Amino acid sequence: MLENKDQSRTSIAQLGEFGLIEHLTKHFTISQESTLKSIGDDAAVLDFKDEKAVVSTDLLIEGVHFDLAYMPLKHLGYKAVVANLSDICAMNATPTQITVSIAVSNRFPLEALEELFEGITLASKIYNVDVIGGDTTSSQKGLIISITAIGTVKLDAVAYRNGAQVGDLLVVTGDIGAAYMGLQVLEREKQVFQVNPNNQPDLEAYTYLIERQLKPEARTDIKELLEKLEVKPTSMIDISDGLSSEVLHICKQSGVGCNLYEEKIPVDPQLISVCEEFNLDITTIALSGGEDYELLFTINMNDYDKIKANPNLTVIGHMTEAKEGNHLITRIGTKIPLKARGWNALQEE
Amino acid sequence: MLENKDQSRTSIAQLGEFGLIEHLTKHFTISQESTLKSIGDDAAVLDFKDEKAVVSTDLLIEGVHFDLAYMPLKHLGYKAVVANLSDICAMNATPTQITVSIAVSNRFPLEALEELFEGITLASKIYNVDVIGGDTTSSQKGLIISITAIGTVKLDAVAYRNGAQVGDLLVVTGDIGAAYMGLQVLEREKQVFQVNPNNQPDLEAYTYLIERQLKPEARTDIKELLEKLEVKPTSMIDISDGLSSEVLHICKQSGVGCNLYEEKIPVDPQLISVCEEFNLDITTIALSGGEDYELLFTINMNDYDKIKANPNLTVIGHMTEAKEGNHLITRIGTKIPLKARGWNALQEE
Repeated sequence: MLENKDQSRTSIAQLGEFGLIEHLTKHFTISQESTLKSIGDDAAVLDFKDEKAVVSTDLLIEGVHFDLAYMPLKHLGYKAVVANLSDICAMNATPTQITVSIAVSNRFPLEALEELFEGITLASKIYNVDVIGGDTTSSQKGLIISITAIGTVKLDAVAYRNGAQVGDLLVVTGDIGAAYMGLQVLEREKQVFQVNPNNQPDLEAYTYLIERQLKPEARTDIKELLEKLEVKPTSMIDISDGLSSEVLHICKQSGVGCNLYEEKIPVDPQLISVCEEFNLDITTIALSGGEDYELLFTINMNDYDKIKANPNLTVIGHMTEAKEGNHLITRIGTKIPLKARGWNALQEE
Repeated sequence: MLENKDQSRTSIAQLGEFGLIEHLTKHFTISQESTLKSIGDDAAVLDFKDEKAVVSTDLLIEGVHFDLAYMPLKHLGYKAVVANLSDICAMNATPTQITVSIAVSNRFPLEALEELFEGITLASKIYNVDVIGGDTTSSQKGLIISITAIGTVKLDAVAYRNGAQVGDLLVVTGDIGAAYMGLQVLEREKQVFQVNPNNQPDLEAYTYLIERQLKPEARTDIKELLEKLEVKPTSMIDISDGLSSEVLHICKQSGVGCNLYEEKIPVDPQLISVCEEFNLDITTIALSGGEDYELLFTINMNDYDKIKANPNLTVIGHMTEAKEGNHLITRIGTKIPLKARGWNALQEE
């Protein structure tokens, strides 16, 4: 699909590195007061005044983190930004800037990179973050995307992974597992397509799941919501690798245990019906499926009344003494050890 | 060389992503007061107080930016850090933190990554920068390194590329061209090795050139030097792609022209003799060879007396009206247009 056989397509080598950067970045505008100097110098210059800076970075590799067979480039650009902003949100901070570096093999025509940057530009507009720098170069194979996200936060608002206390409630935003199930649907369609390229897929029943996979959103709204509710999270992490894995990170770093209640885990009705169709266990998907980019955090039990009526927030468990261990309490009341079965980029196939 | 055939070597998949990150980052220590939280959470937290933050990022791809046939992994790690710190220096800022993301194919055993991180750790110690985050993942092919460097600077000290004025002097630090010539020497040795693997190379005559290629340094000393001399650079850039290309960046962004004097360009005696041996023109190498990581800057003519005696700094030209164009004044006094012939990562071979 992306082979540069069509001679009407533009080779990126024709433009050269500086021409390519100029071409791809011309639509970026600056909206953050803290961006003093953006793209065009050796480095960007930022002014955070009395706020602290928060920095996170991710490296995405074609064939490892994404498959261009079902991931349109515009969506990929959008999602790559969102995944990084989510890490900033997970510090209870507000994303303000990103840098975007891209390496591509010469099978990618300029038009493909333009699509990718359309998605990046869209995400930067929607989330009001400035693209302040990056790098554009060749790869030996496939597409490589490296994004560094920067945000700001007042020191007393920062939520680390290690602040959970015994007795704290474990809270999750939105619903869980849909992004992973969306991937399963897309994988199945890819196989169908390989057998019969003329098959027109009917994806009506899977729209929510596919959207969660192809166009996830970062929960930049949660910081503001918690401020309004006057709740300070004691710890926080985003759900990128899978719920169980993230819960265990908080437990390990905070030195506490937890009881997680299966019946409390929020899932979308579409996930339930598609899990039935695929003959998969909903809870396994919710615990181990990644890429939801929801936030997982702990709050003091006394704050329960402040959040209980909010449709964005679900209490799914509570923190215990570390010696009690980490458990899932099933629907029938049995207690089973919680294991990390999240996605691992270094896994051997 | 890096194939994982030796069973005593450790497969990175055995460790898993979190284990690998823990293993590789355990030697990183924190020395910057501005690093409030480093590796181990969703993001790092930094406090720049009344200074501004400076951010730059680079993506390095095996086979495009480096060749492991003659680039030892430890040197590569060191150089990757230096190249990024150099961008921070080029803003007249002080590097304080870096993030390091790595993707490797499974032909790399753990021991190879350890070597790479040894070089990264060494550079972070020598330059007193904290490694505050990163990502470690698989690649489909080869080694990929993405580094983001962060630094601090007071607003009135920032040196952009666009501040050069007509009449300003053009100044370069150190000497130029050696890193590129070191690469030519290493390329030749690689070819000799391919023909006769038992040949023991005698590189005595090339030590300086090879060191400049394999272990370049970032000019973190220049900011302090200029402060001591009470000179504020009007514009600044680092020499990564080649002197002529960098001069033209300053000219274009500042809206000025320049006269660059061939006889003034500082080169090492070793470069002169090896250029003779290779039958290459010294000035071409000095103008077009990249990776010197020296700084190029402009100063007001009135500051000339303050810098003229300093062995680190050489005046190589002056800025003119833009309409006069960009020229090289040769040793015999002819004026030829200055062209960018620097390295281009997107070039078609």
